[in-house]
Amino acid sequence: MNNFIFENATKTYFGKGCVKEYLAFLSGQYGENVMVAYGGGSIKKNGVYDQVMECLKKSGKNVVEFSGIMANPTYAKVLEGAKLARENKVDLLLGIGGGSVMDCCKAISMAAVYDGDIWTDFWERPGIIEFEPLPLGVIVTVAGTGSEMNGGAVITNETRKIKTGRDYPKCNPKFALLDPEYTYSVPLKQMVSGSFDILSHIMETYFSLPDEDNVSDEISEALMRSVIRNLRAAIVNPLDYTARSNLMWDATMAENRIIKLGKRTDFQCHQMEHQLGAYTDCNHGAGLAVLHPVYYRHIYRDGLSKFRKFAVNVWGICPDQKNDEELARAGVEALADFIREIGLPSSLRELGVDEKADLKAIADSCAISAGSYRKMTHEEISEIFKECF
Amino acid sequence: MNNFIFENATKTYFGKGCVKEYLAFLSGQYGENVMVAYGGGSIKKNGVYDQVMECLKKSGKNVVEFSGIMANPTYAKVLEGAKLARENKVDLLLGIGGGSVMDCCKAISMAAVYDGDIWTDFWERPGIIEFEPLPLGVIVTVAGTGSEMNGGAVITNETRKIKTGRDYPKCNPKFALLDPEYTYSVPLKQMVSGSFDILSHIMETYFSLPDEDNVSDEISEALMRSVIRNLRAAIVNPLDYTARSNLMWDATMAENRIIKLGKRTDFQCHQMEHQLGAYTDCNHGAGLAVLHPVYYRHIYRDGLSKFRKFAVNVWGICPDQKNDEELARAGVEALADFIREIGLPSSLRELGVDEKADLKAIADSCAISAGSYRKMTHEEISEIFKECF
Repeated sequence: MNNFIFENATKTYFGKGCVKEYLAFLSGQYGENVMVAYGGGSIKKNGVYDQVMECLKKSGKNVVEFSGIMANPTYAKVLEGAKLARENKVDLLLGIGGGSVMDCCKAISMAAVYDGDIWTDFWERPGIIEFEPLPLGVIVTVAGTGSEMNGGAVITNETRKIKTGRDYPKCNPKFALLDPEYTYSVPLKQMVSGSFDILSHIMETYFSLPDEDNVSDEISEALMRSVIRNLRAAIVNPLDYTARSNLMWDATMAENRIIKLGKRTDFQCHQMEHQLGAYTDCNHGAGLAVLHPVYYRHIYRDGLSKFRKFAVNVWGICPDQKNDEELARAGVEALADFIREIGLPSSLRELGVDEKADLKAIADSCAISAGSYRKMTHEEISEIFKECF
Repeated sequence: MNNFIFENATKTYFGKGCVKEYLAFLSGQYGENVMVAYGGGSIKKNGVYDQVMECLKKSGKNVVEFSGIMANPTYAKVLEGAKLARENKVDLLLGIGGGSVMDCCKAISMAAVYDGDIWTDFWERPGIIEFEPLPLGVIVTVAGTGSEMNGGAVITNETRKIKTGRDYPKCNPKFALLDPEYTYSVPLKQMVSGSFDILSHIMETYFSLPDEDNVSDEISEALMRSVIRNLRAAIVNPLDYTARSNLMWDATMAENRIIKLGKRTDFQCHQMEHQLGAYTDCNHGAGLAVLHPVYYRHIYRDGLSKFRKFAVNVWGICPDQKNDEELARAGVEALADFIREIGLPSSLRELGVDEKADLKAIADSCAISAGSYRKMTHEEISEIFKECF
């Protein structure tokens, strides 16, 4: 194991009925002004909104609502939320939704108390937070980003066409409520793309140095097998509680820093998808599904021993009569097959990206990961995008 | 996944050189009076003591020493430490050692500020801690108990001949420093028994309901494979940093609550070993090694599907031409073989327990786990002890 520092301050409440059981107690630990933040309103259809509002009102809270947080939350939206929080002297920010809502809320929790410009000081480049962000609690309704148990937030600056993620431990939610039954109403397509996002987070961590025996990689393999098995089960029966609850906890475990300990991590695919998303507003999980196999066909020879392990330990491919390169490649193709099996797109064309899209400009805007087995150039990223069509 | 609540407040610094790099900064966050607690003095031989003292003195700390913490720390020792801490108005308690030192320090951190009797109010039965224990930092020198990242403390009340463990999140160390190189000087026998303690913690969690697919069991299997592989490597070459660092992090992961999430947990073997230890002062890991296979031969038919998975996923036993019971039993025997392979005892006789020891009295004093596949009776525990001879 390489050296690392671990901390995780989020207290996590997991399981059916947890919101009903704990929200009143948890919100009771903060002042009376609560800002409830959410997205497009799906929580009003599935009953989550009513349940939360009833609880907060019974607890005597003054509730201000902030809705309309979009799929790739913008910096403009962050500033709008921060203004509302200041005006209403908010004591607790309560985000209800998936990664976009949670990420937007983390940025709001900073912008609501910081006097400068948080984009310039903390997103454009990493900064040191010397203030206490507004306390944040989250209620998760979609399994995917795992944003509930870290300080990470991916924000899109529309003016500059940049989508950037930062992870500040001070932005960790104070509490997270995860009820797997809340994910039942997520449409199949979104459930699948969210689950692929989980798998992507794990792969982006696993496929990076060090390659020698380490506990984090061993746990990553366990989580990948769990995601694959449980996603298959959840597609067959979306009301399979075992499958949905496992996927929900897989998502959190993939991003609560545990599997990253002692690892460099790559996240080159996420960097590419972020820029694709910034330019085309494509679905995050679906974009990742298109990019991953093509990217791995470019780099697997540089991380042969790990891709070999991936084939055997994650996909159960028998190593007999295959040399290392054949075995490694078979693992990448098993991933590509799985993507087709679960109904995610395998090309940018399927994803609906316009053929006239300026792929070179998108490629040139991608951040280059230092953690990959081979450092990409903007030219190679541009090639990868072309191969994805 | 069954419902659970997770929190872990310990900030963990892992890797070679971490004490030198971070101790001054960490201790600087507390007042000037530091109580340094340790065991029999091995830290004076391997240089750890000098390194810590130099750092604290350079940081201008007033150091009071508390040494002689024994292998099964007694309540009397806890009270002695608490008295010293009060007399010296200690601001930070710094425990250096393995599980015994850390457990003793957690109890001291409570007794040093609590006016009542902590044994009666918090060990004899679970209590609610409504005060702040003295801040505790730990420097780990032996991989095994995983006490560094939880609030658990096993204390022996000599008068009453009871060894009891409790886990209070408020007793989590504020910080933990884990330098795998510090474990190089641990004698082989102790390294092996500490590593078996890790394996035992994982098995005691894994072999309990629920048995349906869950993330915690998947991670437990990953950790068990890691312990087995890395212990074998560390026996061959005790200076193998990869092996020693993996074992050290396996130990922490086994007991930082992650693998217990959604699980009932068993710990019947630990209950039996605790009482064996209270009566005979036997080595903890070695005692567990004797008990585990015999206990599992008693219960494997009641948890057949899990013991079957254990055989295949942990020991790599091929399921061909074996029925479930044969396969499950093969897993238990693989564990027994491994215990012999690594040189741990397979009987109480080998362990040095006197044949005249009152096994019935020991058995009758054992707490009965509610989490086992089959609830034990004191008669059956007595039989298990007899079979262990």
